[in-house]
Parts: sequence; C-alpha cells; structure tokens
Amino acid sequence: MIIDCHGHYTTAPKALEAWRNLQIAALSNPKRGPKAADLKIGDDELRETIVNHQLAKMRERGSDLTIFSPRASFMAHHIGDVETSTTWAAICNELIHRITTLFPDQFAGAAMLPQSPGADTRSCIAEIERCVNEYGFVGINLNPDPSGGHWQSPPLSDPYWYPIYEKMVELDIPAMVHVSTSCNACFHTTGAHYINADTTAFMQFLTSDLFKVFPKLRFVIPHGGGAAPYHWGRYRGLAQEMKKPPLTEHLLHNLFFDTCVYHQPGIDLLTKVIPADNVLFASEMIGAVRGIDPQTGHYYDDTRRYIEAAALSDDDRHKIFEGNARRVYPRLDARLKAKGL
Amino acid sequence: MIIDCHGHYTTAPKALEAWRNLQIAALSNPKRGPKAADLKIGDDELRETIVNHQLAKMRERGSDLTIFSPRASFMAHHIGDVETSTTWAAICNELIHRITTLFPDQFAGAAMLPQSPGADTRSCIAEIERCVNEYGFVGINLNPDPSGGHWQSPPLSDPYWYPIYEKMVELDIPAMVHVSTSCNACFHTTGAHYINADTTAFMQFLTSDLFKVFPKLRFVIPHGGGAAPYHWGRYRGLAQEMKKPPLTEHLLHNLFFDTCVYHQPGIDLLTKVIPADNVLFASEMIGAVRGIDPQTGHYYDDTRRYIEAAALSDDDRHKIFEGNARRVYPRLDARLKAKGL
Repeated sequence: MIIDCHGHYTTAPKALEAWRNLQIAALSNPKRGPKAADLKIGDDELRETIVNHQLAKMRERGSDLTIFSPRASFMAHHIGDVETSTTWAAICNELIHRITTLFPDQFAGAAMLPQSPGADTRSCIAEIERCVNEYGFVGINLNPDPSGGHWQSPPLSDPYWYPIYEKMVELDIPAMVHVSTSCNACFHTTGAHYINADTTAFMQFLTSDLFKVFPKLRFVIPHGGGAAPYHWGRYRGLAQEMKKPPLTEHLLHNLFFDTCVYHQPGIDLLTKVIPADNVLFASEMIGAVRGIDPQTGHYYDDTRRYIEAAALSDDDRHKIFEGNARRVYPRLDARLKAKGL
Repeated sequence: MIIDCHGHYTTAPKALEAWRNLQIAALSNPKRGPKAADLKIGDDELRETIVNHQLAKMRERGSDLTIFSPRASFMAHHIGDVETSTTWAAICNELIHRITTLFPDQFAGAAMLPQSPGADTRSCIAEIERCVNEYGFVGINLNPDPSGGHWQSPPLSDPYWYPIYEKMVELDIPAMVHVSTSCNACFHTTGAHYINADTTAFMQFLTSDLFKVFPKLRFVIPHGGGAAPYHWGRYRGLAQEMKKPPLTEHLLHNLFFDTCVYHQPGIDLLTKVIPADNVLFASEMIGAVRGIDPQTGHYYDDTRRYIEAAALSDDDRHKIFEGNARRVYPRLDARLKAKGL
C-alpha cells in the first residue's frame, strides 16, 4: 500500500473559517467570542469535502492512506493566547477525528497542538492525550515557531520542549515539524517560512545532543527536509567540525524526511543522498502548489510519479511508500496489522 | 581562467578583531572607542595572511581570481548604530582594497556596506562610491537582514532598498545577497541563517516585480541559491499560481546562483535545474566548512572538482568558471580586458 504521511485538511467547509474569524474578532473580549458548540458542520458536508477533493486525488494518483492533520497555515499559533489556541486546536482536531471515523481505511489523524508564543509546552499535553488516546491519532505536528516568523521560542533542543517530547516517547508517536502562517513580511509562508523552518529545525537538531537525551524521539522534517539534502555536504562538514558523529549516526535514527519536493531532480537528489530508511512518501496535496507543471503535464504535487521514476530498488521504494511510515508511526502500523494489512 | 565569485577575508590578522572588540566595548560611549587610525597592520602581515591561506588554496585547487570581500560573519550589522557600521565597514573595505592592490591579478574587491537596522539605506551610498570609484571594487554584498536573524527590515522588493539599487544600476555592479552572524538562538549562522536568507531573498524577488522596476539590477544568491534549486518545482508552481511569468523570464535575467554547494549531488542538481547562464563558480573557501570529506578525501569546499565532474558541455563549464562572472561583474571584465585577458 501507499501511505502519504503529510496531508492537511485544506478543504474544510467555510463555516470553520467563519468560526475562526469570529474568534479572532473577539480576542479582546473572548467571552463575546463563539463557543465551540456554535460550529455546526454535518457529516454529509464533511464527507463531501473529502470525497470530492483529497479522496478523489488519492484514488486518481493511487495512494491508499493519508496521515491527516488540520490545515497548517490556519494553525496560526501567533494569534491570541494559549486559551485561543486551545479552543481552536480542539475544534480542528475534532474535525480530523470525524474524518478518520468516516473514512477509517483512508485517513489516520495527526494532531495540531494548542501552542502559543511563550506558553508553557505542558499546555499541549491534554490535547495530545485526547487525540491519541480518545481519537486514535498516530502523530502530532509541532510548530518550532509559534510566533509565526519572528522565531522567539527556544531551539527545539531546549528543555522548553521536553514535556512534549516526554509525552511523544510515552505514547510512541512522532512529530512532524511544521510551522504555520508567517506574519513576518520578510517570509512568504509556503515559499520561504515553511522551507526555512525545515532547515532551521534540522540544524537545531544537528548542533544539539537531543537524541542522546531522547533516543526514541522521532521527527519527520517535511518538504523534503527544507534545504538539508541539497546541502548535505555542508551539513556533514559542519557536524564534522563540531566533532559530532557522522549524520547517519548522529541524526538519522531519529530524523526522517518526507517527499514533498515538486520536481523530479529534487526527488532524485533526495533519494540519492538520504538513506531510503529515512524517506517517507508524502505529497501535501491540495496544499501550497496546486497547479499542473507545463513541463510534465502532471500536477506538481503528484509526487508518486517522481518516486516511481527515481532510481530506487523495489525494496527501497517499498520502504518509502509504506515500510518507513509503519515504522515511524507504530500506532498506524498496529491499526493496519489489526486489519490484516 | 577560473573566477571564484565568493571569497571572504576570513584570515585577517588578529589586530582587526581586537580593534572591533574595542569598538564594541565602547558602544555606550563611542568617543572612548578606537580611531580607525589605531588599527595598524603592515603590508607584510597582510601579504602573509593571503599567501599562506587563500592564495595557497587557489593555486592548489587551480582557480585564478577571487572576488573578495570582508568576512561575512564579522559584518554584524546588528551591533551599534549606523556610525558603528560606517567606521567598521570603511576599515574592512580598506583592508580588502590593500589586498587587491597587493595582488591585483588574483583578487578583485566587493564591498561590505555600512548597514544598520532601521537606518536609511542612503547611508550606504558614500561607501559604495568610494569602494567602486576609488578602490576599483567590482561588486557589493547586501545584507537583507541587518538585525542578524530577527528579520526586521522590509523585503528586498521594498522601496526602502531603492537608493542602493539606483546606485548599483548607475555603477553597473551586482550585489551578492549575504547575511551576517545570527544573534537569534534559533538560527545557526552558517547552517541555517545563511541558507534561509538565500531562500528568503529568492522568494522576495519571486513575489515582487522588482526587475520590472530595475531591469538591469543583478543579484548573486550565494550558497547555491539556498533551497531554491532543490525546490525549483515548488517555485515554478508558486510563480504560476501568482500569475507571474515563468521563472526563466521573471527572475533569471537578474538572478544568479553561486556554486557553494559542498557535495557532488548538490552541484549535479544545481547545474541540471538552473540554466548554465545563471550559475557562477564559487567556493567561499576557508569559510563555513573547512574540513576534508572522508567520502572523497578532498576538501568539502573544493567546489571546482564538482563542476569538473558535473555533466556539463565545455561551453557551459566555461560560462560557469569565467564567462558568467565577466558578464555579471562588467567592471571585472573591463579590467581583465585591459590586461589582455
């Protein structure tokens, strides 16, 4: 089977955005804001947004299951305070839960966290537990920059983040490192901020000994690892000068890259430079780049085509399409095994 | 001949750093700080730092001429105010001028600018004119983030930068987009901030119509263009959704990438994805990555080897090694022609 480890619910009914706008309008007086119960979206409406979009494209392109999380650019952790984010994350995650309940064979959940700039990371624990234990989610998205492009939180190696890591290890779930909308005019959200965050997180891991502290911690760095694979020689050399072990030892037991790189030469580099054990199939489809590439006649984000065309052994291709996702997301693997898959 | 368009004076005598430390120590009372004339470095000492380092490696690796600028990480525009930067830039540029005078066949100058967070960019004009008209420099380095990792300046497409662009067009010089030290703990200087800045600048150009306003403006984006070539499909797709022309039309008359990518697969991708007319040979040697790659037995930053091994026609290789640099830096070309080269 083909597991896409990176999908967001970008096609949610307009009612969700309207609810959020009311919440934002009432930031100065949250009591006047909407209640969670005010958001009413029926199952038919939910089903329709999936069947006509993500599921249609999954069938068209031939992927079987998507690890699905709330829309990344809408997380906007910089808005309001931890209460704002807590309510908003709960609503968004519940919608994902309903989708994974409606389509249990095609979608598995990954949680958005109720992060907020400067807030204690322990404020995320209840939502993680709820999503994993009650909703059956298999992973989380962790935003290394809740300020939205101002980068005011400590690096991911800082003990600030440890409460989340301890919970991840306890529940045996990975995190995808994923920022949200940039509210810094310097950074275009999907063209600069997303990619920069991937590179930044990678370097934060490289300069630290985080994986000595948490040997079982696992992160997926999306968008093909930002700039890291393209500059792999630079990173090997920097690690060497810092007297770190080779990157394969230092980082690759714990770090994984997805395949959201939207052209063949990029995927060729990724699969050549990064061991096949560390690459997970993903498309982030109906996401940042929704058009058709005039050079190929296919959707830019139809990444399965690039993996099929890359110089990979059948064994390595199977790891990328399925095996690695089942290893990195053991709760997904357990569920698939329970279904005889 | 082989022109390296990206070298910094990273091996300056310790007296330079000592002077800078005195300047920083006196920030609260600049009158107590050192005078420019207090810095005393003899020609023999200067010569020695070059002959034993940059020049030795140029001979060893077979490059002929380096476009040479002050040490990037020492620019540190975030320190002090515009007066601080003005004095510091003048000192650093004068050292470069002395080196290009001592070694006129091997080095051509590129200026550091006296930028400062929030300062009017017109404060850079006098130093640009001095460096180009009096010192014979052939380009400048422009820091898109003088705040050192806090990204508080407007994007490079903003009229804030126009006074510098007008002067660049008037003098027919390009700028290399190059940040300095990060003072944001999230960003490792050479592993994250440098690469992120390249990607960020690229995206700032992509989302704007700057090159319609300044059709003759030319920028070199260093470090292989950050993440841009690796994600070229993403960028083609984003431009397409924004109804911009194809990137070749929209950006590649004005943007160039250097070859500071420290492994063969990265250079292979760069030279495959980016037209040969837009790639300039560079190594940034004795820079961020100074070690020997155990996989090859050669220095990571010995980038000539990668270009030699890349699948390029002789004509394209010549463009990358020499032709493009002479086109992008016409003042260098004029000087070489005057020497019959």
